Amino acid sequence: MLYFAIKEAKKLSNDVTVVLYHQAALVQETMEAYFDDVNYVIQDHENYPGTGGAVMNIATKHDKVLVLNGDMPLVEASELEKFFTSDADIVMSVIKLEDSSGYGRVMIEHDNVIKIIEEKDASEKEKEIKTVNAGIYLFANGMLEAYLPKLSNENAQEEYYLTDVVELAKNDGYNIAPLYVQEENFKGVNSKYDLSHAEEIMQQRIKKNFMMEGVIFRMPQTTYIDADVVIEGESVIENGVTLLSGSKIIESHIKAHSVIEGSEIISSDVGPLARVRPGSKLMDTHIGNYVEVKKSTLKGVKAGHLSYLGDAEIDNGTNIGAGTITCNYDGKKKYKTKIGKNVFIGSDTQIVAPVTIEDDVLIAAGTTVNKDVKSGALAISRADMKTVDGFFDKFFKD
Amino acid sequence: MLYFAIKEAKKLSNDVTVVLYHQAALVQETMEAYFDDVNYVIQDHENYPGTGGAVMNIATKHDKVLVLNGDMPLVEASELEKFFTSDADIVMSVIKLEDSSGYGRVMIEHDNVIKIIEEKDASEKEKEIKTVNAGIYLFANGMLEAYLPKLSNENAQEEYYLTDVVELAKNDGYNIAPLYVQEENFKGVNSKYDLSHAEEIMQQRIKKNFMMEGVIFRMPQTTYIDADVVIEGESVIENGVTLLSGSKIIESHIKAHSVIEGSEIISSDVGPLARVRPGSKLMDTHIGNYVEVKKSTLKGVKAGHLSYLGDAEIDNGTNIGAGTITCNYDGKKKYKTKIGKNVFIGSDTQIVAPVTIEDDVLIAAGTTVNKDVKSGALAISRADMKTVDGFFDKFFKD
Amino acid sequence: MLYFAIKEAKKLSNDVTVVLYHQAALVQETMEAYFDDVNYVIQDHENYPGTGGAVMNIATKHDKVLVLNGDMPLVEASELEKFFTSDADIVMSVIKLEDSSGYGRVMIEHDNVIKIIEEKDASEKEKEIKTVNAGIYLFANGMLEAYLPKLSNENAQEEYYLTDVVELAKNDGYNIAPLYVQEENFKGVNSKYDLSHAEEIMQQRIKKNFMMEGVIFRMPQTTYIDADVVIEGESVIENGVTLLSGSKIIESHIKAHSVIEGSEIISSDVGPLARVRPGSKLMDTHIGNYVEVKKSTLKGVKAGHLSYLGDAEIDNGTNIGAGTITCNYDGKKKYKTKIGKNVFIGSDTQIVAPVTIEDDVLIAAGTTVNKDVKSGALAISRADMKTVDGFFDKFFKD
Repeated sequence: MLYFAIKEAKKLSNDVTVVLYHQAALVQETMEAYFDDVNYVIQDHENYPGTGGAVMNIATKHDKVLVLNGDMPLVEASELEKFFTSDADIVMSVIKLEDSSGYGRVMIEHDNVIKIIEEKDASEKEKEIKTVNAGIYLFANGMLEAYLPKLSNENAQEEYYLTDVVELAKNDGYNIAPLYVQEENFKGVNSKYDLSHAEEIMQQRIKKNFMMEGVIFRMPQTTYIDADVVIEGESVIENGVTLLSGSKIIESHIKAHSVIEGSEIISSDVGPLARVRPGSKLMDTHIGNYVEVKKSTLKGVKAGHLSYLGDAEIDNGTNIGAGTITCNYDGKKKYKTKIGKNVFIGSDTQIVAPVTIEDDVLIAAGTTVNKDVKSGALAISRADMKTVDGFFDKFFKD
Repeated sequence: MLYFAIKEAKKLSNDVTVVLYHQAALVQETMEAYFDDVNYVIQDHENYPGTGGAVMNIATKHDKVLVLNGDMPLVEASELEKFFTSDADIVMSVIKLEDSSGYGRVMIEHDNVIKIIEEKDASEKEKEIKTVNAGIYLFANGMLEAYLPKLSNENAQEEYYLTDVVELAKNDGYNIAPLYVQEENFKGVNSKYDLSHAEEIMQQRIKKNFMMEGVIFRMPQTTYIDADVVIEGESVIENGVTLLSGSKIIESHIKAHSVIEGSEIISSDVGPLARVRPGSKLMDTHIGNYVEVKKSTLKGVKAGHLSYLGDAEIDNGTNIGAGTITCNYDGKKKYKTKIGKNVFIGSDTQIVAPVTIEDDVLIAAGTTVNKDVKSGALAISRADMKTVDGFFDKFFKD
Repeated sequence: MLYFAIKEAKKLSNDVTVVLYHQAALVQETMEAYFDDVNYVIQDHENYPGTGGAVMNIATKHDKVLVLNGDMPLVEASELEKFFTSDADIVMSVIKLEDSSGYGRVMIEHDNVIKIIEEKDASEKEKEIKTVNAGIYLFANGMLEAYLPKLSNENAQEEYYLTDVVELAKNDGYNIAPLYVQEENFKGVNSKYDLSHAEEIMQQRIKKNFMMEGVIFRMPQTTYIDADVVIEGESVIENGVTLLSGSKIIESHIKAHSVIEGSEIISSDVGPLARVRPGSKLMDTHIGNYVEVKKSTLKGVKAGHLSYLGDAEIDNGTNIGAGTITCNYDGKKKYKTKIGKNVFIGSDTQIVAPVTIEDDVLIAAGTTVNKDVKSGALAISRADMKTVDGFFDKFFKD
């Protein structure tokens, strides 16, 4: 959620500060993986709790400071820009609701905020106000510097509230402008149910953007695409596909129910029901059903069925038979497999890494490859097939 | 469908009687798997057809009897409770429709049911009535006992109708109260299309409940959860997951497109694209893609890829290589596999049951395990790999 | 998209002509796979561009000619029939829009089209017209023959416009009737995003039709069904199923996330997570998870887990063990596998085609079948399992 708030904020300003408190280190680490030029401060929650406390010790270098909430992932930069078109001393976001019960009401007269009233302090008449506080503020002209030091925590929760800045400024005659915003986008996420709704809207945006750029989706509402995924060129994303963080799909066709994470897929077709795990790079490659690729580089390869290719490098023209498994782990360490050009790997082959199969090699079906194979050779490990006549009747009729 | 009607009815009363007719034995058997204290009677359909006939021979021990329809799976107990807040002699559910054509109209005056008029008997003016019969009734104060014996089947269908009870009671001056209900929930299921709509609403309710309790769903609209499934703790259910009857998911992460039925998953991660079949129990276990588990107990196990584990017991610290298959069936009977602690099963191993692999065993890749393996041993069945130089050219250039 | 336009047009007339230009040969070839009695002409785009140019050289043998657009896949025959109920000289489709900006406005008076006004030529007053041209026309009584030769390309685009036919006819006093149509269905597809919306509506129609005929769908909104798929009898289609072109499902149960293409499935159950590729025919057969079938005929077969069956014919009573692979390709050619009745194929068997396994055969687990097997025999290729005591400690404790 925070990711999206930061992403939109950065479209407006190079000076974004994130105030953390709960699991601050974990959150900061996660965000630093995505953004490299964001400031982080940790709220002094013990001494300065509340929304006012959160911004208490932030040096504001700018004439206008926009305060966002981390739990509003759907707010877009285009909506935030509207805050800057007003020259009021404070601009606060408000929503008109059918049923405003439970929310802080905002009394507005002549397009000016007169008063913010908490639910519990509202008179019967004030409870009829349908306009509520949406929690995003633009503070201009030194308002934060002037009023943050004057905030008090003498209230039921013993917290410092940003709404008090608004009230104090109002009392001193400053101009507080309301900005009407869409409920849908400014809704806070307070439960896993809210979260799934926000995610749904976010997913629709992500996929719509790709479709407008020419990517073909089959039943987009059944696909899941992480926010940092890249899809380019004449790509097709079929129903049920899952593209997770760090994936880059270029001129490729990803078939039904495939799951791809942290991998680059170029001019390839993958699936249906395939899995590509992080650190893989596929070029001009065909990956079929029930094939798992992990941390491997495949160029011009065909792996059509039921295989596990892990920690492997496989080169042009090579065909991987059904049931091929790279035995990359011996219970202690992981090892690498290298397979050259134009290799034909027969079905049900186990490739015990570390091992190198050179170019132009043929591996017979069912072979356990536990030694390097030189270019041009056939490799085979196979017990002769024997038959026992009449065994069927003996076995089944006993 | 009937399951949901019974489930809601049981929230209101300990004395629930289900009237069966079509495939009565099969329906009763199915329902008995879910409910152990419900009464079943079979309608004497030959002599007493119709909705009146259905309740004809049920002894009513209570002052108030609620008659539901088995094809209204979306009616919730909270809505049924409203029937009991009235002290009318009969309470009947009615729906206001935009277009009431085709339905039995209910004439209401001063909040009292005056008359029920069948479509075919309605005058032009009566056809304009928008209020229709929703088919659920509460009979109080001996109404059923008094009027069921007076019902007649002298009508076009030669059936006994519950609506006639209402009419007879009305004529005798009893008080019939209408209860306005929501069309969506009181809609009968008359086609497979209606069924899919009812199922969709039911699925939304099921998943919303879990999310409100803290379960994280990724794209809940793509997941399917049977009504008796339990999900607890910090669990995550990804897109496309199918959780079927009898599943219990506790503090676990179920990844995309996995299918789980009748199994307990505790502190484990499963999938993507995994399958757990009935009778399985997984604890602290990792199950990866293309792994099928059936009737097996796994504690502290890793089975990451392309395996079939059936009728097996596998203990702590054991690693199952890709392509491992328990050969639990010999064409005649099914047998069990027992695997101890800290066993390393190499890739593409076939374990021919019945067999026991003790603790601290290493099985080489490609082995056919057809004898028990003692603790501490390596087991291997492998023909030496041979190479034939120059074979590639001979084979492909011929 | 064009497929649907042709399909609906053919319900109205045996004389359907498709005007092609972009990638004409490819489009014609694709359509000819579906329709065998449609005429194709290629627009002389160089000399006669535009919508008027498209129909310029088509000999109209009929009194009434309906002109459709290829990018309106949602228009249904039932809506097109309405054009024929008018006896106007030209009937043109119009849509009422909330916001008509950007569209050609249609001025209508007394249910008669007065004028078509392009956006750029519209006065302020004309811009307020909410009725716009939906682009489908019925030309009766020789209108096309009379006015196509009079069209001019003296306009900004240097194209010939069908709207000019309407204008010329109007000026000569002919009767032009507007036909109000639904925006949803007459919306052209101009982006991949529009395409996904059209597809969604089309998918809803396809599945609703099957459900009304008695097919059970679990979560139909998660399934994808190509337009030419046939589903018959008491079939069940579970969540996430993909049924692609040429599939015929008869009295069968297709389980979650299975993908079927170009195959016939009769009295069988398939999946979950199974894949049936083109050219397959399954009868009375059970296909389980991670099983791929390609170009194979299976009668009365069980293949429950992790298998690849390609180019195979398998007969009644045969059981295919987990991990069975038909090695149908040797790097040069594809070969066939024949398996008889009541064969028991042990797990992890590789069947090296071409090969024939006769009736009543037992194949031991892990066998590489590279010779034909006679009726009644056991076939086995297996190195003895050896054990090395104490190896585990030596390996892992070093």
